[in-house]
Amino acid sequence: MSRASFAPEVQHPSGAIFGDRIMVLADGLAKWSESPEGLTCTFLSAAHRAVANEIAELMTAAGLDTAIDATANVVGRYNSKRPSAKTIIVGSHYDTVRDAGKYDGRLGILVGLVVAEHIVQNRLDLPFNLEVAAFSEEEGVRFSTSYVGSSAVAGRFNADLLDRRDKHGTSLAEALRAAGHDPKTIPSLARDRAGLAGYLEVHIEQGPVLLAENLPVGVVTEIAGNSRFLVRVEGEAGHAGTVPMALRHDAAAAAAEITLMVEQYGKEFGLLGTVGRLAVPNGAINLVPGVCEMSLDIRSGNDATRKTAVAGILANIARIADRRGVTATCLEVLDEAAVPCSTRFQNAFAAAIARAGLSVRRLPSGAGHDAVMFSGITDIGMLFVRCGNGGVSHSPRETVEARDADIAARILLDVLSNLDQA
Amino acid sequence: MSRASFAPEVQHPSGAIFGDRIMVLADGLAKWSESPEGLTCTFLSAAHRAVANEIAELMTAAGLDTAIDATANVVGRYNSKRPSAKTIIVGSHYDTVRDAGKYDGRLGILVGLVVAEHIVQNRLDLPFNLEVAAFSEEEGVRFSTSYVGSSAVAGRFNADLLDRRDKHGTSLAEALRAAGHDPKTIPSLARDRAGLAGYLEVHIEQGPVLLAENLPVGVVTEIAGNSRFLVRVEGEAGHAGTVPMALRHDAAAAAAEITLMVEQYGKEFGLLGTVGRLAVPNGAINLVPGVCEMSLDIRSGNDATRKTAVAGILANIARIADRRGVTATCLEVLDEAAVPCSTRFQNAFAAAIARAGLSVRRLPSGAGHDAVMFSGITDIGMLFVRCGNGGVSHSPRETVEARDADIAARILLDVLSNLDQA
Repeated sequence: MSRASFAPEVQHPSGAIFGDRIMVLADGLAKWSESPEGLTCTFLSAAHRAVANEIAELMTAAGLDTAIDATANVVGRYNSKRPSAKTIIVGSHYDTVRDAGKYDGRLGILVGLVVAEHIVQNRLDLPFNLEVAAFSEEEGVRFSTSYVGSSAVAGRFNADLLDRRDKHGTSLAEALRAAGHDPKTIPSLARDRAGLAGYLEVHIEQGPVLLAENLPVGVVTEIAGNSRFLVRVEGEAGHAGTVPMALRHDAAAAAAEITLMVEQYGKEFGLLGTVGRLAVPNGAINLVPGVCEMSLDIRSGNDATRKTAVAGILANIARIADRRGVTATCLEVLDEAAVPCSTRFQNAFAAAIARAGLSVRRLPSGAGHDAVMFSGITDIGMLFVRCGNGGVSHSPRETVEARDADIAARILLDVLSNLDQA
Repeated sequence: MSRASFAPEVQHPSGAIFGDRIMVLADGLAKWSESPEGLTCTFLSAAHRAVANEIAELMTAAGLDTAIDATANVVGRYNSKRPSAKTIIVGSHYDTVRDAGKYDGRLGILVGLVVAEHIVQNRLDLPFNLEVAAFSEEEGVRFSTSYVGSSAVAGRFNADLLDRRDKHGTSLAEALRAAGHDPKTIPSLARDRAGLAGYLEVHIEQGPVLLAENLPVGVVTEIAGNSRFLVRVEGEAGHAGTVPMALRHDAAAAAAEITLMVEQYGKEFGLLGTVGRLAVPNGAINLVPGVCEMSLDIRSGNDATRKTAVAGILANIARIADRRGVTATCLEVLDEAAVPCSTRFQNAFAAAIARAGLSVRRLPSGAGHDAVMFSGITDIGMLFVRCGNGGVSHSPRETVEARDADIAARILLDVLSNLDQA
């Protein structure tokens, strides 16, 4: 493949042939929503099924051998001419959070789609089979469990989840059957590890780093490990007008001190520390808070750093609680190790970025992605694409520029075109 | 009157004749509740009307000339033999918050009642008429307005409130009419200022000061002034895994810093500073909070101190918001001046406490009381009674000891017995 193959077949507004097409396709998918306003597309809703069908049509039209599998993943395949070729999966998810943006997950599918379309149209000879996978479920909205689709393909689907029910009482198995899928066949979706040559994912950064550094793309070094806790601080409720400051055991003041301590840990340890939930239940303007509930989310690409920080944070919470005469109960709800991206794919993305004349920025992913499911199964690689609006995601304000999507597609095509047979 | 008049007529469990009777009466009133569990008695509920009737019966049985007025106050009167005598009102309220204790408000009514009963039974000659007033509404639960009953007697009733509706859409005027009262006659309840010799109120402290100092009663110096604000902090929501610490505009972290600053102001300025409401709306464990809502409650017996502190707190909020790149909108919802208790009544209570062989502790009231309504109309005086359980109030855990209630009654009787003609 030469640079010449990038010459535009059709003129688009920005002149970025891949990018403009991706924008149009993302707009098209975003028309399917289960909410009258904004975009919400959760697992196996009518909107979700419509999106699956539209993606399947696009893949088929692109010349891929396409099927919707038993977990509602849409997978389009382009076979290598070499009979012993392994398979590279390029994937991401098409479900969304509530009131979502158009690009979280879908950008990666559409980048894969337009690149595969280009490969098919140009009959490029790849040393591996290429699968573009549109995973059905990553956000965990409907059944409070993430990675339903990618876990099945990675052979990690937890069959216990089939009994899990959504808020209307429908089980995951029932939802699958209602959509015409047979949950019994899910185990057969697992790819043979030996046949996999790698998993690649393009995803919006969902953060402001690339935007702040004026870079369209970045190479993901690892997906951060994540510790999460729910913390309940119990002090002593009292009348705001009658309990002297010195005699208070104010749960909210203790929670405030914990919040700032967690923030400080984040800054000093070079990790991410977030108090996302913070609430005095039934708080009243004239009551010293007796209870305050909060959450902690600690992330680092380095598991040792994260573990050390978590231990320090928990010790500090105990000290703060002790000094203030309150109790703080910390319930661990997540302890997820960091997932490294393979050096091979990091270097492949970096080389393609350099060939495109761009600066190579390596950065960790603080958020989980479908790639996590393929870690340990095959090599994984991820490319981040710059978001606008300060890097906002999970919001209608999420944006991606057509030019940046175009660059991502060209880099993915370059990587696929230059990969050795794995 | 001599000390001998305190000799017990009937033996009670603790041997404290007034105290034991007050406990029994408080238990009796607490049987009327609009909730199946716990005590809730809000303005003009069936429970509230039953309590009014029970208090009226008790007052009548005590030999007082008793009536329920147009705002559902129950007032029992014992006339002086001196024709030109002015009137001293001993009052407090019989409505409650939701899930209340038995003594907030009612202790003061019952102390007044048993003392008046003793005065009637012993035909004590007082140089003033004595009115025991059980005010109908102080807590502001049903119509979000406080002091309905005492404001009417003090001549400060705001007729605009008659149109105010409860959460079921019933107006205050409609509620009064349904209970057989004529709202049009409320202005006639106002006492002639020239005829008043003072307003006295016994109330539970609703705080831990007397308990901590092992004192049964204290003399209230003033009712603190109170500033209240609702604060909305707006930062930038973001993914907890993707927004670097240095690029965050975390509304909850800003609110935490404000919370600790307000606490510090309280400690350093010798006032009360409380953040009672604190909440990230729709907070999620993996989201950097974009919004945090909080309340400020600042109280001091010294208005200048309070004003200076409020100005300092607001300036600090602006500085914190500015440094963190968030906005903080502060809406003032209350600015109430401090209300001093008269030196005459403070000294009268102090002298009676000393005569009872107890240490005299003067302390401010951080909470508002019906006495506020009589400030500027006549001299006011307040006696605080120790609470148990760390001073908790507005809770079923609110307690008062029979012995302390007994001491309060004896001190009130002593004060009334020794007051000069005003």
